[in-house]
Amino acid sequence: MKRLVLPVLPVLFLLAAAPAGSAEPPIHGFSPARATAQRALEARFDSFLAAEDQRAWMQRLTARPHAVGSPYGKENAEFIAGLFRSWGFDTRIEEFRVLFPTPKLRRLEMIAPRRFTAGLAEPPIAEDRTSGQTAEQLPIYNAGSADGDVTADLVYANFGKPEDYAELERRGIDVKGKIVLLRYGGGFRGMKPKLAAEHGAAGCIVFSDPGGFGFFQGDPYPLGGWLPEQGAQRGSVSDLTPYSGDPLTPFVGAVPDLAAGKRLAREDAPTIARIPVLPISAADALPLLAALGGAVAPEGWRGRLPTTYHLGPGPARVHLALAFDWRLVSAWDVIARLAGAERPEQWILRGNHHDAWVNGASDPVSALVALLAEAKAVGKLAAGGWRPKRTIVYAAWDGEEAGLLGAVEWAESHAAELSEHLAAYVNSDGNARGTVYTSGVATLTTLVDQVYGDVVDPEKKVSVAARLRAVETLYGSPDEQRLAAAGKDLPLKPFSVGTDYTPFLAYLGVPALDIGYGGEEEYGVYHSIYDSFDHFNRFVDPGYLYGVALAQTAGRIVLRLAEADVLPLDFVPFADSLQKAVQRLGQSIDALREETAETNLRVADRTYELADDPLHPVKPPRVRDPVPPLDLSPLEKAVAHLAASARARAAAPQPAPGAAAGLDRILLQAERVLLRPAELPGRPWYRHQLYGPSAVTATMVLFPAVRNAVDRRDWKGAAEEIAVTGQAIESYARQLDRLPLALLPGQS
Amino acid sequence: MKRLVLPVLPVLFLLAAAPAGSAEPPIHGFSPARATAQRALEARFDSFLAAEDQRAWMQRLTARPHAVGSPYGKENAEFIAGLFRSWGFDTRIEEFRVLFPTPKLRRLEMIAPRRFTAGLAEPPIAEDRTSGQTAEQLPIYNAGSADGDVTADLVYANFGKPEDYAELERRGIDVKGKIVLLRYGGGFRGMKPKLAAEHGAAGCIVFSDPGGFGFFQGDPYPLGGWLPEQGAQRGSVSDLTPYSGDPLTPFVGAVPDLAAGKRLAREDAPTIARIPVLPISAADALPLLAALGGAVAPEGWRGRLPTTYHLGPGPARVHLALAFDWRLVSAWDVIARLAGAERPEQWILRGNHHDAWVNGASDPVSALVALLAEAKAVGKLAAGGWRPKRTIVYAAWDGEEAGLLGAVEWAESHAAELSEHLAAYVNSDGNARGTVYTSGVATLTTLVDQVYGDVVDPEKKVSVAARLRAVETLYGSPDEQRLAAAGKDLPLKPFSVGTDYTPFLAYLGVPALDIGYGGEEEYGVYHSIYDSFDHFNRFVDPGYLYGVALAQTAGRIVLRLAEADVLPLDFVPFADSLQKAVQRLGQSIDALREETAETNLRVADRTYELADDPLHPVKPPRVRDPVPPLDLSPLEKAVAHLAASARARAAAPQPAPGAAAGLDRILLQAERVLLRPAELPGRPWYRHQLYGPSAVTATMVLFPAVRNAVDRRDWKGAAEEIAVTGQAIESYARQLDRLPLALLPGQS
Repeated sequence: MKRLVLPVLPVLFLLAAAPAGSAEPPIHGFSPARATAQRALEARFDSFLAAEDQRAWMQRLTARPHAVGSPYGKENAEFIAGLFRSWGFDTRIEEFRVLFPTPKLRRLEMIAPRRFTAGLAEPPIAEDRTSGQTAEQLPIYNAGSADGDVTADLVYANFGKPEDYAELERRGIDVKGKIVLLRYGGGFRGMKPKLAAEHGAAGCIVFSDPGGFGFFQGDPYPLGGWLPEQGAQRGSVSDLTPYSGDPLTPFVGAVPDLAAGKRLAREDAPTIARIPVLPISAADALPLLAALGGAVAPEGWRGRLPTTYHLGPGPARVHLALAFDWRLVSAWDVIARLAGAERPEQWILRGNHHDAWVNGASDPVSALVALLAEAKAVGKLAAGGWRPKRTIVYAAWDGEEAGLLGAVEWAESHAAELSEHLAAYVNSDGNARGTVYTSGVATLTTLVDQVYGDVVDPEKKVSVAARLRAVETLYGSPDEQRLAAAGKDLPLKPFSVGTDYTPFLAYLGVPALDIGYGGEEEYGVYHSIYDSFDHFNRFVDPGYLYGVALAQTAGRIVLRLAEADVLPLDFVPFADSLQKAVQRLGQSIDALREETAETNLRVADRTYELADDPLHPVKPPRVRDPVPPLDLSPLEKAVAHLAASARARAAAPQPAPGAAAGLDRILLQAERVLLRPAELPGRPWYRHQLYGPSAVTATMVLFPAVRNAVDRRDWKGAAEEIAVTGQAIESYARQLDRLPLALLPGQS
Repeated sequence: MKRLVLPVLPVLFLLAAAPAGSAEPPIHGFSPARATAQRALEARFDSFLAAEDQRAWMQRLTARPHAVGSPYGKENAEFIAGLFRSWGFDTRIEEFRVLFPTPKLRRLEMIAPRRFTAGLAEPPIAEDRTSGQTAEQLPIYNAGSADGDVTADLVYANFGKPEDYAELERRGIDVKGKIVLLRYGGGFRGMKPKLAAEHGAAGCIVFSDPGGFGFFQGDPYPLGGWLPEQGAQRGSVSDLTPYSGDPLTPFVGAVPDLAAGKRLAREDAPTIARIPVLPISAADALPLLAALGGAVAPEGWRGRLPTTYHLGPGPARVHLALAFDWRLVSAWDVIARLAGAERPEQWILRGNHHDAWVNGASDPVSALVALLAEAKAVGKLAAGGWRPKRTIVYAAWDGEEAGLLGAVEWAESHAAELSEHLAAYVNSDGNARGTVYTSGVATLTTLVDQVYGDVVDPEKKVSVAARLRAVETLYGSPDEQRLAAAGKDLPLKPFSVGTDYTPFLAYLGVPALDIGYGGEEEYGVYHSIYDSFDHFNRFVDPGYLYGVALAQTAGRIVLRLAEADVLPLDFVPFADSLQKAVQRLGQSIDALREETAETNLRVADRTYELADDPLHPVKPPRVRDPVPPLDLSPLEKAVAHLAASARARAAAPQPAPGAAAGLDRILLQAERVLLRPAELPGRPWYRHQLYGPSAVTATMVLFPAVRNAVDRRDWKGAAEEIAVTGQAIESYARQLDRLPLALLPGQS
């Protein structure tokens, strides 16, 4: 094809080291000359960032509760749209009609061995100006709970993970027909009622243990920033493992004029919990816990409430009654565009949600105001005559808290054009004092790493890269310590629980990042009425210094994505990260094999039986099927091919700027090849074969199909998924192989 | 010498494997024929053990508080002596006059930021029949505290270990002139006021955190067996690192007629604390902790009380006033002898203390009643005409709780004859349901291991060896798991905090064991009024099944020591254990070197500074002198020599029974060669060069002189002590080399 015949520059600027004597480090995707210009652009960008802006927007956006479907949520969307417009963006608000249940009835009472009625309310605090807005606050509840009215004995089941139920079983405790009392933590909360229901529980109560959130961490609010005794964590309990977004409209956007038959009946929506589930405060949990009898909980299950943690069942018996208004509400996404001057058909998307459970200062407004600051600065640059090479799109999503509603429905509505045009998505969801933290696809490692080197930490006046390296050297995981201390490039973090990047990454196959600062805040008030402007200003980011740092960081990432000569994907760290991931997968399967064999041996040779205390009996674990050898070579070979291709590509002559547009068109689509091919059985919503939710924890894992097959001990399925995933990586490598050859003159 | 010319048996019975087809495993030190007879003897011994005896003695001995110097303590000594006499032992009570301070004044009050007066009292409990004996109970206090009246700001200093003060220093907190609030745990309590005083503290308060002792572990007494909120731990705070025993009479027995000038003035006794120190309950600690301000304590310092643990200093300000009656009291040791028929000059000593802080059911009566059961059974055997080959001595020590007073003063009083005659000492100090646990010198490993194989666990009806192996396979340290799972012989445990074996092992150089069962009890009431008969019968060893198991186990050990053809020392596990210990010493020095270098590097390259949170500042650690290479070859060579000698000895022809008496005379003295030579500078009380107290934790460590030099970073001293300790092991090996040669016909 004609457009692929491109001239070649003799300099290797894509991955070039800085020329000797040069003061400036290189920027991936930029020639040295353009790197200098880019840094000048970024300096101008920085000059438009003002902490006072972020503080003012924070105050405005958190002034009243603003959940999806709320009046102030709509006001906020309009306010945000107004800002974007005032900065020159082509802005619109898109509406979706989504399921958002809110409680009509919440009742939790203990009826034996003594009576206690849970308060289920967070008291206003004099020092917190918005905590008294009780009329507009959503009460403490879990969106996605079933309606229900159950009375049953209580069982304490720790985090409610599969291994927790296995431990209960070893102690002869069956949760069938019981209400399980769980603590928050140990994975996405949506899995708690799901797994509880799978084990036969009739209801589920989830409390915030002070160990994770409250006084154990530091002084409770308002003395310190941590969750007060009566504070509780709202949150969605949708099961996001089949799909994200509106429970009633998988695969299609929940646009206002969606045809009647296109919505699932609520009973058919697999993401809605099957049993009633209610979050409670530590103060409401203590009487329940203290009333439990039966065996003392295993040591690792005991939290920080001042009582002996028992397992039950009973004598604590509780009545749990929940009823919801299952209404459709409008979600308002704000979308603001600045068209690219050279390659307007290539889009860089930057998003953050604007809805909150209550006032939501930390979650999500802390990072939303950084996004607004970025957009304002970009607007100022544009007002001065500058235009980005590529199109930049800012998005403020609604309904994230209820299951990524706004982002998913928008992505589904615009799937075709996004598949064609969207080059990268940069997300954030919260920000605080501390070190920078970016999850992301590894092709963007070099981009992020170079940006880290150019942003100055506001506390320490060194690059945020240097600060991150220092923190990880001292406090990181063993792997992080090793890499950081050795001065190696720090890999991006794995994705954790899904947020608004999910539809772009996992459904559409778009390279995504999720970025934020944190680690020095006093928090714990997550999803409570205390996540407020007053709290934020005292305990999270006083002075908005890290709000500015986030704007500088995400702003540079967006500007470099938008301005690079060619899209700044680096395949070498991508290949390296996959090599490590395959190694780790192999190690984890080997460990599972050894652990299975050892456990089975110790059951067979009576070790468990002999070690057991007959006054506190614990049955041996179940004997499990042995883990057969699993041949990872399809993955290993594909990744080795990818590594060779990536290194060859890095060393190959690169096209001249004039050729870059053609190259870009291919790079933009590169990640799409990793989506699950349509011809495979099933029609999964999570199509990305490298990143997807664990069926056990709902957190994002690598090689999800393989991982989930291993987790359910489906060895045949695992072998098949190893082959399929290997083919996807093969395709990616082949695409890479073709890329430089096709672009060399006379080769096309 | 004539008596060393001995005939030689062709069979290797000392370490012989069982002959093929034999049903009975061998017994170390016995010929196969004598092993059969020994097992028959042990079966008869077992037939005299009755759980009801132990229960009755327990009830009698714990009926009233019986600390050293108390009326009931003396009654108990007389009761015990009466039992021994009734069983035919040559019994006497030996009196010592020892320092035992008891409180005249105890006052602890918080004067700012609010007033609170600590209750310092444990309430009687209706369900516990002895808990109301308030007239005779010693109050909550630490024996060995200084008198004092101080008012100062409070600082929380975790366990009060050296590294805890280093952490405070990094947070800019100096404890000079302050009162430190500490929690129990992390080493012997005597180090707490010692280290606090060394850091300039004016006073010291020590509380029982519910994490270690109370509701976190299980239901508090009387619902469960754990320490109630208002329970507290009495205990000695003598600094046992210079010497054990009476603070005023190091090296000499505190006999009643001790010449006036032989006692130290109290001010000159280095083991008495320099500052006032008081133990308190969790209930008394909570208001103090909750009133502390300043930084939040590091995560590892936070216990289970329901408050945020702060460091201070202040605003909590406390007044601590303590005054003691520094009186001499009488300690009454009960000593009961059964003379050996063949080698009466070789003594086997079995001891347990009889004094308690209050009623002392678990500590120490649980194991004392097992010792009594053993003595009764031995008496019954003797009444049937049997006599042991060697002399058996039973001892019930007084004053252990106040610093091993009874055992040490007796050992010092009888040092010369004990040095000549004492072949081994078998100690116990408490017993409970669970698995067997023996600390000891490794020459006794085979003896103990074989006994474990012959005692049946009362719950599981397998050998206690099989049960121990099962528990360690599942729950042991990584080393224990590896050895247990591989079916290897389990090494004896290291000695921990010193108890009554200390003078025999460390001062006199006698092979010692310390044995007990445990792990399935509900305890935590240690050194409180709740360690009672009622508590014991419900939560520690209902039915006294493990009391019988301990009698069977310690009884066999004593009987085999008393009856063996030659003293059953096995040098192969001894050499193996030292080889491992030298390896571990090297690894720990290497780790210290690496950690020092890494820390110094991270201070120098500003890593600590960059990682620090400026709102919660923590200074970098102090730069420390680098750890030079330390040449362990003197130890390695000596241990290699020992290993070769031990293996050669194990394989060598062994003397006939008629020759054994002469061999025994040498074996009996073998351990003495490990005592520190008199010509070395200083005159340490702890003379054993392989086992002695750490100067930091006061727990027994291997190679104490080397270890302590390393801990104080005295590299030259460490090198010297490596040489000295190596020489001691060399001497032991040479002694071993000479042994078989001297005994072979024509070689002497």
